[in-house]
Amino acid sequence: MNRSLKVAVAQIDTTVGDFAGNSEKILAGGWRAEKDGADLVLFPELAVCGYPPKDLLERRSFLEESERATRRLARASGEAVWLFGSLAKNRARAGRSVFNAAVAARRGRISGIYHKRLLPTYDVFDEGRYFEPGAKPPYVLAVRGRRVGVTICEDIWNDKTFWKRPLYEADPVRDLRPLRLDFHANISASPWTLGKERLRERMMRKVALGSGVPLVSCNLVGGNDGLVFDGRSLAFDDKGKLVGRGRSFEEDYWTIDVPGGRAPIAELGSDTEQIRRALVLALKDYAEKTGFTSAVLGVSGGIDSAVTAALAVEALGPDRVLGVAMPGPYSSQGSLRDARDLAERLGMRLLEIPIGPVFEAYLSTLSRAFEGKDCKAAQENLQARIRGAILMALSNQFGHLVLSTGNKSELAVGYCTLYGDMAGGYALLSDIPKTLVYALANEINRDRVRIPPASISKEPSAELAPNQKDSDSLPPYPILDPLIEALVDQSLPASVAARKTGASPALAREIAGRVDRNEYKRRQIPPGPKVTARAFGEGRRYPIAQKFRV
Amino acid sequence: MNRSLKVAVAQIDTTVGDFAGNSEKILAGGWRAEKDGADLVLFPELAVCGYPPKDLLERRSFLEESERATRRLARASGEAVWLFGSLAKNRARAGRSVFNAAVAARRGRISGIYHKRLLPTYDVFDEGRYFEPGAKPPYVLAVRGRRVGVTICEDIWNDKTFWKRPLYEADPVRDLRPLRLDFHANISASPWTLGKERLRERMMRKVALGSGVPLVSCNLVGGNDGLVFDGRSLAFDDKGKLVGRGRSFEEDYWTIDVPGGRAPIAELGSDTEQIRRALVLALKDYAEKTGFTSAVLGVSGGIDSAVTAALAVEALGPDRVLGVAMPGPYSSQGSLRDARDLAERLGMRLLEIPIGPVFEAYLSTLSRAFEGKDCKAAQENLQARIRGAILMALSNQFGHLVLSTGNKSELAVGYCTLYGDMAGGYALLSDIPKTLVYALANEINRDRVRIPPASISKEPSAELAPNQKDSDSLPPYPILDPLIEALVDQSLPASVAARKTGASPALAREIAGRVDRNEYKRRQIPPGPKVTARAFGEGRRYPIAQKFRV
Repeated sequence: MNRSLKVAVAQIDTTVGDFAGNSEKILAGGWRAEKDGADLVLFPELAVCGYPPKDLLERRSFLEESERATRRLARASGEAVWLFGSLAKNRARAGRSVFNAAVAARRGRISGIYHKRLLPTYDVFDEGRYFEPGAKPPYVLAVRGRRVGVTICEDIWNDKTFWKRPLYEADPVRDLRPLRLDFHANISASPWTLGKERLRERMMRKVALGSGVPLVSCNLVGGNDGLVFDGRSLAFDDKGKLVGRGRSFEEDYWTIDVPGGRAPIAELGSDTEQIRRALVLALKDYAEKTGFTSAVLGVSGGIDSAVTAALAVEALGPDRVLGVAMPGPYSSQGSLRDARDLAERLGMRLLEIPIGPVFEAYLSTLSRAFEGKDCKAAQENLQARIRGAILMALSNQFGHLVLSTGNKSELAVGYCTLYGDMAGGYALLSDIPKTLVYALANEINRDRVRIPPASISKEPSAELAPNQKDSDSLPPYPILDPLIEALVDQSLPASVAARKTGASPALAREIAGRVDRNEYKRRQIPPGPKVTARAFGEGRRYPIAQKFRV
Repeated sequence: MNRSLKVAVAQIDTTVGDFAGNSEKILAGGWRAEKDGADLVLFPELAVCGYPPKDLLERRSFLEESERATRRLARASGEAVWLFGSLAKNRARAGRSVFNAAVAARRGRISGIYHKRLLPTYDVFDEGRYFEPGAKPPYVLAVRGRRVGVTICEDIWNDKTFWKRPLYEADPVRDLRPLRLDFHANISASPWTLGKERLRERMMRKVALGSGVPLVSCNLVGGNDGLVFDGRSLAFDDKGKLVGRGRSFEEDYWTIDVPGGRAPIAELGSDTEQIRRALVLALKDYAEKTGFTSAVLGVSGGIDSAVTAALAVEALGPDRVLGVAMPGPYSSQGSLRDARDLAERLGMRLLEIPIGPVFEAYLSTLSRAFEGKDCKAAQENLQARIRGAILMALSNQFGHLVLSTGNKSELAVGYCTLYGDMAGGYALLSDIPKTLVYALANEINRDRVRIPPASISKEPSAELAPNQKDSDSLPPYPILDPLIEALVDQSLPASVAARKTGASPALAREIAGRVDRNEYKRRQIPPGPKVTARAFGEGRRYPIAQKFRV
């Protein structure tokens, strides 16, 4: 029997379009692997150009730059085989112009290129829009006499025995089976959602076990707009046993001998720990990759803004986050007190800018136009929009990134104001249902009280009208959130959602109607990190002008 | 030789998810065809459920409702074959769960179902996200002994001799060729863009000519969010000669004997006529399909708001459009005069709401926070946001749809204010470059002066600072617009865009940078009708956090 191979896993955080920066990271990982005497070093999917490049792929110059970077990287390779994700031109006379490729390089040359066959085109994924699918036969990479089956992300997500209904007829793993592999090498850009870390391991375990050979998979880490990649590159032995797991939500590098070796197995963490780390990484990367060094947000004394502020401070540092308390005519004294308490606990600066004078000016300006009618919605929204405009003005003045603080429950039913509390450059909690915001607050307070207990314990209120409570307009969140999950995440009709959650059919219908009617608001939300199976935004594409109500 | 067949073309305007309404239209067309003694009646693609249904397709209840409606429609069919677009369930054990189908019904029964094979997944299209592609063999429909080759939209858009680089290896038209067709029947939902009407006819002519048999195609008409379908169903004889063309931008019904018959050939109209009619239909349908009966917009005295107002009046009627002049500290007296002039000419109501007091209130509220610094951008944006908030307040109070008035040139380079002039429910000019706005203004004034000549002739200005002109911040529009077309519509690098347009390379780079940097603003625009080859929004999907600058 041959000796084992030493496989290095370089779990890096890439930036879309940053060919220089991404190449530097690949070079660093490659050289480290060479120094470690590795035989093979894996990098994530599309490591050279970043993931997801989206319509940048239609710029020919993007492909050319990628090809140049790919050749430069190949020239740097030494005794180890470097296997990294990149773009490859489709030279056929029909079809899409580019492949999603795994490039193998050794001793200064490209030694092989594999084209991804299964192209995810659902939820947040649009790969069918850009890439030509690779054709059979599968690609076996020779590394020191061992036979390595190469796949890219989705290629291994179609096991016919694992999924109830596989999405593709083709199955690259099945096609590799007769080829007497020594192991699978998979490169991925598999974004995290809550619980996906476990699904992914069960699925990969099945691939290793079903093939009877080990599997090593290198996954991307980092935030890119609405996606958070958790890293957690994985290794399984030929029995499907987990023998290596990279760190969560940070870059990592490790090696493992295949077969037979063991690597460190990093902790997964609790659900709320994971969410916290995902959101912090998402914001940190969004700010860094777009060039913001500071953020501003409205701090109402409520739980949503408190959680957003705490996460922002964790991501950017307390001196780079500015809180703004903007008390209005219906704000309680407790709210301002809680905002101050929060700022003190987090060590962030707090501005206090009352909105009363601007609100009065609007009301007298609009009084004639309003024809003496009293419109509650208009008055409420005005207050929210004044706050949005103040935050944007501070952003214009000082260059801060505006964080909006709304949660998924509000967005789902439209309990939020366009250009008001929805205003901002990044919506950190936009995929966190309210009940989960509470859990997150407790997680944030676990080792030290950062979020004022009063912000957690008090009844939720938008404070836009006298004695207003969320419960005046919405069912209690423990009833609303499961309904939203059934209607939105699972696309169930109202009747089934009611049965499943115990809500009344009338309530389920009402909420379903609100979800549908408020699509126009969600069309204008800023990006925010995807956490659940179904996030609003790119992952849920609904028509606005539509009349389906079942 | 057999007698010819009488083919009826029912060019209807469907609404997504409106199974009852769409079915009514299909029934009306079917019965009319029966009465006319037609042998075959064609309806548009996905006529039963509306196009594009988007993620509604993931609701199982949507598919069930579609199946019920399809069966009901089939039961209504008589001696004519009814061929209409609908959904069909995929019963295979792998793959996507639904087909984009053409259902043939006669004498109360479904007599055949064809599955669309080529699924457009580019630009505004996401069909690969939803549908399983149909498999060979092609479907030949028997109608009174004649052999009719059935295709759906994109199926006939892949002629290997017509396109420089076909997008698909498969070609359903080529596969039909050996099957001795009598003619092609195509059902489509082919959205209009400027010039596409001619491309479509050249392409279909080629299909008829290449196959040597006639072609009849029924196209959808109507606006659905950002898409406008122009109708213009077409008939070609076996020599590729145009023998029938339905009306533009409105519903139509006609019959033609195939082969040998002739039908009316409706005018295409000039480019500006087409744009005008497309925008009017888009707005009319958006309002109707979302339940708005009236609109409100800011009227600055400038050309963009004047054109938007004129189109809105044409779409909704003068008594359903409210103009709001909101003079600010830097508005010229001429602007208010021009706004009044416009309102008078259009017969619409005009409110005058000065923003000075609210602006002053903001400045004094923000003065401490601004730390004595003078920020031009913050002050300018505040004025725009006050106007946005006033319009939204009127919308809340009276239920008007807010129309935003920005054009494509501004959106491209970010010369616009989020939550300010970008605020609204529908952005009518969002895909019209400024130079085309002028052409459109002249078109609107062709038979009667609706837009004040002063609004057309004066130099463009946002009037947010003393003596401000667009030309202070932007190159002249006749230079800017071709650059935007090269950079955005054609995805060219700045160097090539410069060569192509005659702009300096430095200017091209600067504009390219502005286009990229302002993606975050465009992520939050309301929908607006697509007119050019590449509209912002769903048709151009760019990452925000990205560093590519070539």
